[in-house]
Amino acid sequence: MNNMNYTEIINSRIKEINIVGEPKELYEPISYILNLKSKRIRPILSILSFSLFDNNIKKIIDPSIAIEFFHNFTLIHDDIMDNAEIRRGYKTIHKKWNKNIGILSGDLLMIFAYKMLEDIKEKNFKSTISRFNQIAIQVCEGQQLDMNYESSKIISEQEYLNMIKLKTAVLIGFSLELGGIIAGQDKKTSGLLYEIGEHLGISFQLMDDYLDVFGGAEFGKKIGGDISSNKKTYLIIKLLEKADSTDKKLILELIKNNSDDNKKIKIISELMKKYSIDKIAINKIEFFFDRGFKLLESLPSKKEKINEIKEYFKNLKKRKV
Amino acid sequence: MNNMNYTEIINSRIKEINIVGEPKELYEPISYILNLKSKRIRPILSILSFSLFDNNIKKIIDPSIAIEFFHNFTLIHDDIMDNAEIRRGYKTIHKKWNKNIGILSGDLLMIFAYKMLEDIKEKNFKSTISRFNQIAIQVCEGQQLDMNYESSKIISEQEYLNMIKLKTAVLIGFSLELGGIIAGQDKKTSGLLYEIGEHLGISFQLMDDYLDVFGGAEFGKKIGGDISSNKKTYLIIKLLEKADSTDKKLILELIKNNSDDNKKIKIISELMKKYSIDKIAINKIEFFFDRGFKLLESLPSKKEKINEIKEYFKNLKKRKV
Repeated sequence: MNNMNYTEIINSRIKEINIVGEPKELYEPISYILNLKSKRIRPILSILSFSLFDNNIKKIIDPSIAIEFFHNFTLIHDDIMDNAEIRRGYKTIHKKWNKNIGILSGDLLMIFAYKMLEDIKEKNFKSTISRFNQIAIQVCEGQQLDMNYESSKIISEQEYLNMIKLKTAVLIGFSLELGGIIAGQDKKTSGLLYEIGEHLGISFQLMDDYLDVFGGAEFGKKIGGDISSNKKTYLIIKLLEKADSTDKKLILELIKNNSDDNKKIKIISELMKKYSIDKIAINKIEFFFDRGFKLLESLPSKKEKINEIKEYFKNLKKRKV
Repeated sequence: MNNMNYTEIINSRIKEINIVGEPKELYEPISYILNLKSKRIRPILSILSFSLFDNNIKKIIDPSIAIEFFHNFTLIHDDIMDNAEIRRGYKTIHKKWNKNIGILSGDLLMIFAYKMLEDIKEKNFKSTISRFNQIAIQVCEGQQLDMNYESSKIISEQEYLNMIKLKTAVLIGFSLELGGIIAGQDKKTSGLLYEIGEHLGISFQLMDDYLDVFGGAEFGKKIGGDISSNKKTYLIIKLLEKADSTDKKLILELIKNNSDDNKKIKIISELMKKYSIDKIAINKIEFFFDRGFKLLESLPSKKEKINEIKEYFKNLKKRKV
């Protein structure tokens, strides 16, 4: 089965689950966000991971959707906190409805994430909930760090990597881990799956940072959006680290003064080239990607199954870069 | 052991659990709200309910604190949605910090509620999480209904009772139910415990409505606060139902025009007296209270134990009325 089919399986199961209820003000935003076009990366990773050990993928579908629900809950609340207007090409919930509805429908979707986990057999249930709680706590910590870093002038590479690990990579890690758990794998293997996901999750987040400046505009996205919004990214952190004092002063002034967008993007991206930040970023992306792939190869599964999951990651990367 | 001691046990266990972590911006608000003076009604109800069947209350402490955490999560988010400034005599989290921190620390506290439930033995774990999910969903629905009703002119008694059931009473019901579950009681008994809590929860919410107008000002609370803020309460709903067309018109005008507070409170509370809304409310309060007490008596436990929980409810009522 190819990944295209997995997306369809996830989408049709989400449609089937059909979270509806009263009052509709609370439930409509949930249907809305769950039906926006999405790559469903996290549940697909759970399915691929499960498939390494077991072919009866029915067992992993609902638990994998718990992760998708949790991810969407974080999107709803993050969008309020970031005051974002657009998500997946459509209005964010708090813009289409209002902030209160965003808060409460997000809360409800988080509870529905726990509810989807009820599909897990008694034997694995408690340990999975416990891991899920740990992961969920880390995701909240990551979001708070992200908000904190917005207002701090300079943060270190280490701080940044830790933040994206918490905010993004631990949930990717758990997506793979969950597949292993439901397929009955032991702590060692499910822990390894987590590690793989965490590395690849960091790699993909760094790639997002890279593509914002060096990805071209083919996705309809504006080049340098992160630069224009003064977002802390791996690129800007490394640039501030490498730049000489004159250039650094210039960059900080451009950030501070909210200068003309095009000028700011042009100068900063040229400085990134000057200091080879593009190459440094690519190296870092490959470093985490390769580590994830090395770990993948050590999994106790058939080579063809491991290749299936590798293919998926390679395609994700290709589509991105 | 008296209930005073139970409060201390809960407080000292919450201090011991000591939810701290990084970033502090996320964890400090949680410590803050958990350490505000509180009667700890919900966890005490769980302990009292557990004590009906088992003396080893150590087993119920952590699960009971899950409910306290969940309750405090709802307070944090509700206060944002209601734009409330004061909670338990102190600044609300979103006022002391900001809305984003309120949203995220609330999210985190909800996750910690699930985490506290990890104390429950494997045997009861899954069924308890499943019930907790149901209850949590209903609490969200109740909050949304409450917000919806703010902007609707007239709602029925039935709609109002359903709203306070969802928003408040189901969690009181679950507090008692949880005590039964952890004490190993069957579905029938734990279901009965839930029913008792639901009835008493509705009774206490109606009492809050009553006391806002007819409770005197001894608690430092302004009389008629609900009237002044145009809150939908049992009293105003019944008043609008009973009033003749002239009086009804006057009331709706007073609400609509945001008239002078003292004048509005005076006229509306006098009209409530005129139409015996105070007596109607007391009757309804007693109706739910008595039904809860009748059900209490049918529990398969010793009379002295049942009396202990009755005492607690009577004291709650006395302190209120």
